[in-house]
Amino acid sequence: MTDLSTIAELLREHDGFEILTHRYPDGDTLGSAYALCHILQGMGKNARVITSGTPAKKYDYLREGLAEQDFVREYVVSVDVAAPELLGDNQQEYQDIIDLCIDHHGTNSMKAKHIYVDAAAAAAGEIIYEIAQCMQIEYTAGIADCIYTAISTDTGCFRYSNTTGRTHRIAAHMMEHTSNWFDINTQMFEIKTKDRLSLERMVYETLEYCCDGKCAIIHTTLEMQQKAGVTDDEMEGLASIPRRIEGVLLGLTAREKADGTFKVSARSNGDIDASAFCAKFGGGGHKAASGCTVTGDLESVKAQLVRAAEQIL
Amino acid sequence: MTDLSTIAELLREHDGFEILTHRYPDGDTLGSAYALCHILQGMGKNARVITSGTPAKKYDYLREGLAEQDFVREYVVSVDVAAPELLGDNQQEYQDIIDLCIDHHGTNSMKAKHIYVDAAAAAAGEIIYEIAQCMQIEYTAGIADCIYTAISTDTGCFRYSNTTGRTHRIAAHMMEHTSNWFDINTQMFEIKTKDRLSLERMVYETLEYCCDGKCAIIHTTLEMQQKAGVTDDEMEGLASIPRRIEGVLLGLTAREKADGTFKVSARSNGDIDASAFCAKFGGGGHKAASGCTVTGDLESVKAQLVRAAEQIL
Repeated sequence: MTDLSTIAELLREHDGFEILTHRYPDGDTLGSAYALCHILQGMGKNARVITSGTPAKKYDYLREGLAEQDFVREYVVSVDVAAPELLGDNQQEYQDIIDLCIDHHGTNSMKAKHIYVDAAAAAAGEIIYEIAQCMQIEYTAGIADCIYTAISTDTGCFRYSNTTGRTHRIAAHMMEHTSNWFDINTQMFEIKTKDRLSLERMVYETLEYCCDGKCAIIHTTLEMQQKAGVTDDEMEGLASIPRRIEGVLLGLTAREKADGTFKVSARSNGDIDASAFCAKFGGGGHKAASGCTVTGDLESVKAQLVRAAEQIL
Repeated sequence: MTDLSTIAELLREHDGFEILTHRYPDGDTLGSAYALCHILQGMGKNARVITSGTPAKKYDYLREGLAEQDFVREYVVSVDVAAPELLGDNQQEYQDIIDLCIDHHGTNSMKAKHIYVDAAAAAAGEIIYEIAQCMQIEYTAGIADCIYTAISTDTGCFRYSNTTGRTHRIAAHMMEHTSNWFDINTQMFEIKTKDRLSLERMVYETLEYCCDGKCAIIHTTLEMQQKAGVTDDEMEGLASIPRRIEGVLLGLTAREKADGTFKVSARSNGDIDASAFCAKFGGGGHKAASGCTVTGDLESVKAQLVRAAEQIL
């Protein structure tokens, strides 16, 4: 593994940068990639971001102030990409030519000339910040917006357990260089589309409890999704709804898929092991968040989930 | 106005402290009061918190580790109380005998021997932290839990526009002294009671748009509130629902009151002035958040709101 001062050296020495994000790009991979692009262009270098898939429109501000430069690629950097397959459409072209891989996933399995993984970083954006510090970069609002976005989105606005004192101190520093952080938080955490809200209304109607209220189950069907006009991209985050209910130890979300199965997300509180629950259906994951696939029609799937929940709780 | 080192002196000199909170006590007034109580007891002093009204059970942890001491009151401190009437049930007994008033509301109108108001502080808890720093207190987990709670709750977990770099730096420091901050965030921001969720389900069903989707209106009736089994305490926060919808500039929440009127909360985005909207009904407030009372049955109230919204938008 390389270190921060070597990275600073590599970035100073090279030019013609292409910076890669992971597929289904989120605030951390985009914020980190665009922050690095702002930094490099600010140093007078040629640099562009190559996203995997089109980012949601709400992230457009991350690109503000960047120039579209015409140049031949010389140096390839990946940020927040934990494994080659997460490069998505870019895997084929790029997986064997990455010069520098910057990531915060302890499980990183990328192939690259230089690899820097800091698993204690709440977001890849924290590492970009440390590189900027190491290079004594003068922060612009553009850089600060990108780094703030990266760390804020990957920590649920400083709420998740991956947040550290370092995360907060970086936020404090970035807030000295941008006044956009409040609008960023509003866009990232507050605003919901009308279609998404319409889906949530339907989802709330499906809420059922079992096991004396210790388990809550919600579901979505293809029909609901179609009626609300919600794309797969907008289906994220539903799984946290049942887990947030007072007294609920196991929250289950069953989502009907086009192949006739249901994708089940299990979220647990306290000592309950969601991965043990999912293992009953051949799935797995983490103790607090796991997933599995269950086959059958809606009623049969729910009956299977209730039976399994009764065994766990 | 006094200063931090005078406050440190006053706290060192005196004993027999009673610390007052504001009525309907929230995380900031309770966190600040209990933090100060932890600090004073840690200095070998007698101290107790006198809340105005019973705090919600979820705040019980703030008192953990405090001794119930038997002593005669000698020195009275109020924290996060902006005006005498906000002392609630304690107003009569205490309003004329407050020795030290610590607050972060620029509008503070308290009468006290010593007053310290820092309107730039996101939470009263930030001032308690600065007092602790000034006194070179050794932080315990109890103190850190209380200060973290105060600043986290008053900033919506570092999301609201009152958050500053100072807020983040204090959070970072407190996280060095407690591992409970994640559980605190979960309790304060994630968990909803089943009754509250049941009310929200009903509220989502009332959602209507007008003015080409630029205005969203929700309502609650006494019947809905009773059906869900929700107390007035649990009615908070509904007003932010319509404002969060993409494209909505004016979000209105009409809540039926026992006297036959509707209490209307207006929340706006962008340049829309919610207080100008509420002024049409004799109400007022801030540009982004205002309130008014509208008389009539539900249908007539909604018709009045739609007409007024059409004029504003």
